[in-house]
Amino acid sequence: MEREIIVYHLSAGCTNTEVEEGKIYIGRVQGFANFGVFVQLNESVKGLVHRTNLKRRHSERDPILVKVISIRSNGNIDLEEVTPSIYHTEMVVKKAATVSLNELSQNIGRMIRIEGVVSQIKQTGGPTIFIVSDGSAIANAAAFVEAGVRAYPEVQLDDAVRIIGEVMTRNNQVQVEVSSLAVLSGEEAEKVHGMVDQAIERRAEPADLPFLVESEVLERLRPQMRLAAKIIRRAILESVPIVIRHHADADGICAAVALEQAITSIIRENTGDFEAEYFMVKRSPSKAPFYELEDITRDLDYALKDAVRYGQKIPLIVLVDNGSTEEDEPSLRIARTLDLKVVVIDHHHPDEVIDQFLVAHVNPYRAGGDFGITTGMLGTEIARMIHPEVTDRIRHLPAISAVGDRSEAKERGRYLDLVKADFTEEECKDMALAIDYQQFWLRFNDGREIVKYILNIGNERENQRALVRILVQQANSAIEDQMAALMPHVVTRILKNGAMLFLFDVELFAHKFTFPPPGKTSGEVHDRLCRLHPDRAVVSIGFGPDFAVLRSRGVLMNLPKMVRELRQEILGGGVSGGGHLVVGSVKFVEGMREKVIEGLITKISDVPIEASFTGPCR
Amino acid sequence: MEREIIVYHLSAGCTNTEVEEGKIYIGRVQGFANFGVFVQLNESVKGLVHRTNLKRRHSERDPILVKVISIRSNGNIDLEEVTPSIYHTEMVVKKAATVSLNELSQNIGRMIRIEGVVSQIKQTGGPTIFIVSDGSAIANAAAFVEAGVRAYPEVQLDDAVRIIGEVMTRNNQVQVEVSSLAVLSGEEAEKVHGMVDQAIERRAEPADLPFLVESEVLERLRPQMRLAAKIIRRAILESVPIVIRHHADADGICAAVALEQAITSIIRENTGDFEAEYFMVKRSPSKAPFYELEDITRDLDYALKDAVRYGQKIPLIVLVDNGSTEEDEPSLRIARTLDLKVVVIDHHHPDEVIDQFLVAHVNPYRAGGDFGITTGMLGTEIARMIHPEVTDRIRHLPAISAVGDRSEAKERGRYLDLVKADFTEEECKDMALAIDYQQFWLRFNDGREIVKYILNIGNERENQRALVRILVQQANSAIEDQMAALMPHVVTRILKNGAMLFLFDVELFAHKFTFPPPGKTSGEVHDRLCRLHPDRAVVSIGFGPDFAVLRSRGVLMNLPKMVRELRQEILGGGVSGGGHLVVGSVKFVEGMREKVIEGLITKISDVPIEASFTGPCR
Amino acid sequence: MEREIIVYHLSAGCTNTEVEEGKIYIGRVQGFANFGVFVQLNESVKGLVHRTNLKRRHSERDPILVKVISIRSNGNIDLEEVTPSIYHTEMVVKKAATVSLNELSQNIGRMIRIEGVVSQIKQTGGPTIFIVSDGSAIANAAAFVEAGVRAYPEVQLDDAVRIIGEVMTRNNQVQVEVSSLAVLSGEEAEKVHGMVDQAIERRAEPADLPFLVESEVLERLRPQMRLAAKIIRRAILESVPIVIRHHADADGICAAVALEQAITSIIRENTGDFEAEYFMVKRSPSKAPFYELEDITRDLDYALKDAVRYGQKIPLIVLVDNGSTEEDEPSLRIARTLDLKVVVIDHHHPDEVIDQFLVAHVNPYRAGGDFGITTGMLGTEIARMIHPEVTDRIRHLPAISAVGDRSEAKERGRYLDLVKADFTEEECKDMALAIDYQQFWLRFNDGREIVKYILNIGNERENQRALVRILVQQANSAIEDQMAALMPHVVTRILKNGAMLFLFDVELFAHKFTFPPPGKTSGEVHDRLCRLHPDRAVVSIGFGPDFAVLRSRGVLMNLPKMVRELRQEILGGGVSGGGHLVVGSVKFVEGMREKVIEGLITKISDVPIEASFTGPCR
Repeated sequence: MEREIIVYHLSAGCTNTEVEEGKIYIGRVQGFANFGVFVQLNESVKGLVHRTNLKRRHSERDPILVKVISIRSNGNIDLEEVTPSIYHTEMVVKKAATVSLNELSQNIGRMIRIEGVVSQIKQTGGPTIFIVSDGSAIANAAAFVEAGVRAYPEVQLDDAVRIIGEVMTRNNQVQVEVSSLAVLSGEEAEKVHGMVDQAIERRAEPADLPFLVESEVLERLRPQMRLAAKIIRRAILESVPIVIRHHADADGICAAVALEQAITSIIRENTGDFEAEYFMVKRSPSKAPFYELEDITRDLDYALKDAVRYGQKIPLIVLVDNGSTEEDEPSLRIARTLDLKVVVIDHHHPDEVIDQFLVAHVNPYRAGGDFGITTGMLGTEIARMIHPEVTDRIRHLPAISAVGDRSEAKERGRYLDLVKADFTEEECKDMALAIDYQQFWLRFNDGREIVKYILNIGNERENQRALVRILVQQANSAIEDQMAALMPHVVTRILKNGAMLFLFDVELFAHKFTFPPPGKTSGEVHDRLCRLHPDRAVVSIGFGPDFAVLRSRGVLMNLPKMVRELRQEILGGGVSGGGHLVVGSVKFVEGMREKVIEGLITKISDVPIEASFTGPCR
Repeated sequence: MEREIIVYHLSAGCTNTEVEEGKIYIGRVQGFANFGVFVQLNESVKGLVHRTNLKRRHSERDPILVKVISIRSNGNIDLEEVTPSIYHTEMVVKKAATVSLNELSQNIGRMIRIEGVVSQIKQTGGPTIFIVSDGSAIANAAAFVEAGVRAYPEVQLDDAVRIIGEVMTRNNQVQVEVSSLAVLSGEEAEKVHGMVDQAIERRAEPADLPFLVESEVLERLRPQMRLAAKIIRRAILESVPIVIRHHADADGICAAVALEQAITSIIRENTGDFEAEYFMVKRSPSKAPFYELEDITRDLDYALKDAVRYGQKIPLIVLVDNGSTEEDEPSLRIARTLDLKVVVIDHHHPDEVIDQFLVAHVNPYRAGGDFGITTGMLGTEIARMIHPEVTDRIRHLPAISAVGDRSEAKERGRYLDLVKADFTEEECKDMALAIDYQQFWLRFNDGREIVKYILNIGNERENQRALVRILVQQANSAIEDQMAALMPHVVTRILKNGAMLFLFDVELFAHKFTFPPPGKTSGEVHDRLCRLHPDRAVVSIGFGPDFAVLRSRGVLMNLPKMVRELRQEILGGGVSGGGHLVVGSVKFVEGMREKVIEGLITKISDVPIEASFTGPCR
Repeated sequence: MEREIIVYHLSAGCTNTEVEEGKIYIGRVQGFANFGVFVQLNESVKGLVHRTNLKRRHSERDPILVKVISIRSNGNIDLEEVTPSIYHTEMVVKKAATVSLNELSQNIGRMIRIEGVVSQIKQTGGPTIFIVSDGSAIANAAAFVEAGVRAYPEVQLDDAVRIIGEVMTRNNQVQVEVSSLAVLSGEEAEKVHGMVDQAIERRAEPADLPFLVESEVLERLRPQMRLAAKIIRRAILESVPIVIRHHADADGICAAVALEQAITSIIRENTGDFEAEYFMVKRSPSKAPFYELEDITRDLDYALKDAVRYGQKIPLIVLVDNGSTEEDEPSLRIARTLDLKVVVIDHHHPDEVIDQFLVAHVNPYRAGGDFGITTGMLGTEIARMIHPEVTDRIRHLPAISAVGDRSEAKERGRYLDLVKADFTEEECKDMALAIDYQQFWLRFNDGREIVKYILNIGNERENQRALVRILVQQANSAIEDQMAALMPHVVTRILKNGAMLFLFDVELFAHKFTFPPPGKTSGEVHDRLCRLHPDRAVVSIGFGPDFAVLRSRGVLMNLPKMVRELRQEILGGGVSGGGHLVVGSVKFVEGMREKVIEGLITKISDVPIEASFTGPCR
């Protein structure tokens, strides 16, 4: 049997250097001369087949197989035509240097070699796009067999590969057009995996820098904060999308925006893809003060669709000012079942049961702190660990979150001091109120740019001040309207323990579907009544058809325990809820409102009062 | 008058073969020699104009008109310059073979000829895109005159055309770049139309294969099922988008997903366009249990916008587990007015009035069957007719729909038997509950991938099992919570016909806006009460402010008739509704609830009871 | 010190004409001959370096620096190799003619020069896109340094620039690929700015044409209408996006659609970008009858995101059939703070306070007219000023708006006369009802094409008639249903001033969340009762839990004043609202409904009655 012949195809970019005497190449007839025909081996290499070495007649642009007789010192190539009956072709590529992916854009037009790990495979109507990471950066490699047909079907996610191809710009993006792609195995694969892992591990390491202010609690939380920062950095480096879900109030927004700034900055630096920051990270305010089933369902729906349609990885979920309590459990349980990784950054009192579902959990209660360490403080400091360069843009966010969430921790003052040259405490309060008010009208849209505007991230201070001023005026005017309607309907009772109880219906006697919403309305009423009765224990209950919002001062109660008891005691009450010891909310079925609220009041009447709030009744 | 001269333009891809002696060509000056100038006729054909044949001086790359004096045996072409005063140009194309559209991707870079019918015309900011079908496949042909200007304005939808052009890949899609396009007429047009019609008609023919289980009803329905399948196949072949609107419960989802699988599979095979399955078919769960005016308005809004903006055809509407009753009439009437074709696949009791609006109507009541033949069974079998290859992915869906809809037909057992090696009856029930629960949180989004995940279409069984397990746990826990709140408030009456009546307010005494919603809550209460009173006739009425959901067992009533009577009898009651004979719902204006419900109860009291349910009162 | 040498790079498109003897060029070795090497200076210019003029050995395609010794009469170029140690390169471009941007598409493939003002800067993952206007048109100029890196960072919005580049088609759009870009300063900049400003100012000038009908009020409004038209035209010419926000009723829709037609027509003509009409203008029906905070928040959210992501300008807001009253003030105040320009075209009674926020305000009350001059009339006439060519498509819209809004102005009849050959008054009424009904189901989507269909803009009259017929049937049937439910519950009182008062609860005794909604329902009841009592003064109050809709005939009341008084008198009533003198709505907190409505009735009882409506009680 005849040995099979190899015919080489000299690919674009090759020069004489890649041509070898004795080898057979496929070329194209370029022109005719008396003494023979000129044959092009690629767009820049040509040779001559002397007519004595021709086997048949040719037309211009005919393909022709030729053997290289000699390459002369002046570069001229002498060829002879050959006509093997059986052969296969092989590509000859420019002796390609191995290039780091972070150097791609300096190699446009060159044939190069890259080695890395496949992090996404995207079938388009044309080529198959392999997204490859070599630890230094991420790049697209496009391989084409036939329109819409998967190229290199043997390649799977996380395979180590060696790709040779030309660096091109397509649709404004730098990519490698694959000439050959080989899945590595054994030692070679291990080496590449090791290299990529090490590089990513090394690059994922968060920055080591002092906190913006002194804080014992933050110092104790540092290891968990570093862990959270590292998981987020790793996700970015591995092309894992990130979903930031956060409480839709000033604290939650400050924290989430700080993280968003750090994450988008890195994405911009790390990928050549200008649009990546818009689809690789998504910030979503949550409607409820926890990670609802509706939220995770939506996140999953998008995640799975993107995975199938675009070959994207399943996202990392970062819960901010949310996620620490048992109300989050159902969603977290589903997340775990589907291998969704979840990071929680929260300052609500954490329930033990939650940790089993998380890859990192930053919570001041775990380090001897409390609610006063706001999520805005935590989020900002973690954002700095992720990307220290954003510090200047976000350093005032902890102060805003502190006044927004009425922090009484000593860190409050320190963060306010930090920025006092730029923002007074009053201005921070205004920004917190403005952002709450604006978010209300944003209706759970992220409002990416308008939120940055209000929080003075990257815009002119003067314009920002003007917008905050007008929003604060309108918010305060809306609050005054609400109070004018509601305050005359507040019912007062003196409980047997001496506390003053204020009862008011926030649906019957307040404007609905406008700012301020029921929770904020109740808080405002409570604050005003506390100021009116500075030396008394005060309990305020704002209720609607199937809920009650409770706030108190000076009453030593345990609301979660009361709710658990009412749930047992009131048959068919559908009681649930909770919150903190002395502040929270209760839900029930509408038809049992009377019974539930009276039951609650009875329990509150039996609770002792703090000594400092037993002043005279007025 | 001088006869007008034709000047030929040798298009890309032509070689000497297309050059004819004596004809005039337009070329470009390529280079100069002492003896004359070289002229390129296209990128690969050139000739020489001897200086004696030149009429004037030229610069490099100047256009020049030349007549071919002779083509020598060695391929050299002798030219002379000519300077006609009036002429028009014609394209010379590579003697183009007529190519079937399903062979396009094997002809990239070649000049070809296609004949077909125009199925879409899309004006872009650059070329005009003609989407052409020749029966074998669909392809894009791009014609350019000037940016954004409509090319060949004489061409209309459904014209038969002959196109000559080069096959190219643009934006990752294979297309024909039009060199010439002629609208055919007379015999030629008829021939092409006939060819395309025949080809599409032949290719639209659904598969002829046995049902998955034995069923007399299905056999009798086969002709209508084939018709529905053929209409759907034809739509795909003719680039007609498809909207699948379905009831948002387990049965409706199973049927719609089966159809979606078949349709997307064919689209993927039939078009080279990888994205087509995302814009050519849309599955939408309906909020109401019928095709609401809001639904058709949205469908029309999108359809007309897509028609104008992208030149898409008006879609085919496929109503699934919906569409058979007079509640659908208003929407269907609008559909007909706007030439929207509608296919209904439903197992609700059909109203006569509906058929006039439909191009196909598959309904077991039309073949001696009933509700027990679920839409999931129908949809799955029709999906197999559309595309038999999807059978393995969807064969378990009828069993899930059967247990989900509590089918008591004998087909239920057969479909369960069919898949028992893979899914027990218990598992099918769990999948039905899980999909109901998940759909509730999806809030009428299609949840394309998450729904496939739960229904185990194409994913790992183990992961699917884990997700179903957790969803079922949560659904059951939510149902228990709802029952704990509601059951203590159920009011019992013994009617004068001996039936037990259970009355309960599903808004006052149940959790709102959560799972289970009012309809499912009422069903669950009814089931529990039936189990408690196994030998009694039972009527359950769960009511809200302006509606009542009625379920019954052992009472020989005719609910639609009662509703019609109440509508007449109660002035200002705003009564409407209906459903099946012994189960359904009634709507009324809130202020007349008392009167309507008492009126209804009075009517129920007068109805005879089935003999088997006259057991002793407990 | 050696003087630095300039080496010229002959860019694509240059020919011998651009080559100068004595200058040094960078070229590429093209081929070898015994007597020397051929050097390409660009793709079409080459010369010969005689071997005696070579300094070293070269390979094919090597870059080489050469000085031009001479250009011979036959075009041959003699070169010598040079090897300067220090040099910098300069581009030689084809002596580019300055081309107007409206001539770009006739210059594809040519190197040209443009001068204009930068109106948008868009960074992509590849080149930076400068959108430039020279007054004649707008075009994209793409400049590339490195993928995703901002080119010419010194260029800012509104800079005057001179660009030299090649005209290319990319992604189906004509653009200039920048070879060089210079920011102009001093006199040159002033000249370009002046030219562009003058050109835009001239082109922004609206058409001067007679109104469709005679109207004194319109004539008096002409200056403001021209101003509004000019601002809108200028916005289009300056690439400013336009948001049309309008009342979601027949009048508002007619006006907004007329404007939309004019604006999209110009955009299509003015930009080469076929998609521009879809992102440069957005028509949005408002939920409320004013520019709500939720509306402006959404508009701002999108505007700022588009500004950051796509470098778009901040949009012009055009409020239609909305915007004139103090309810709009909060949103307008925010608009002003953020430099959003707002045009108002409205026929509601204007509040003084509003004008300070507007760049133009067209309102018949400002010209001795009233509500009877509908917004549809105003919008249509302004649309004609913007683009007279749309007249034929929109000339019937004023008639529809007139009957829809029950205009009693004499212009009503004139506009009806104008179109009576095509549309009878009855048909106009039907179209108004059909559009109201369809918009209800569109739920504040714009329904762009379906709305045009119903309004017979560009479609077949016969199809339009069929659709309108069916919609009118359904709308009337829904109204009858609503009346059947509600009318029996209307409570009648005779007030002490003799007026008949009709009271009815539009939530308790009407179908909710369907057509007709509460406002329209109340109006329908009022109309029927007026017809029943033709000679009596009539007041109808349709109320829900927290609102009342008031209509009256023959009662000389001042509703806004009554509302202001009630707000003062009823402590904790949360009263607000208003409208016109004798028709409007009142809002209050739910728990105070009784008090507010009785208070209102008391006030109405004290108001005198018009003489013509004091007929006998029946």
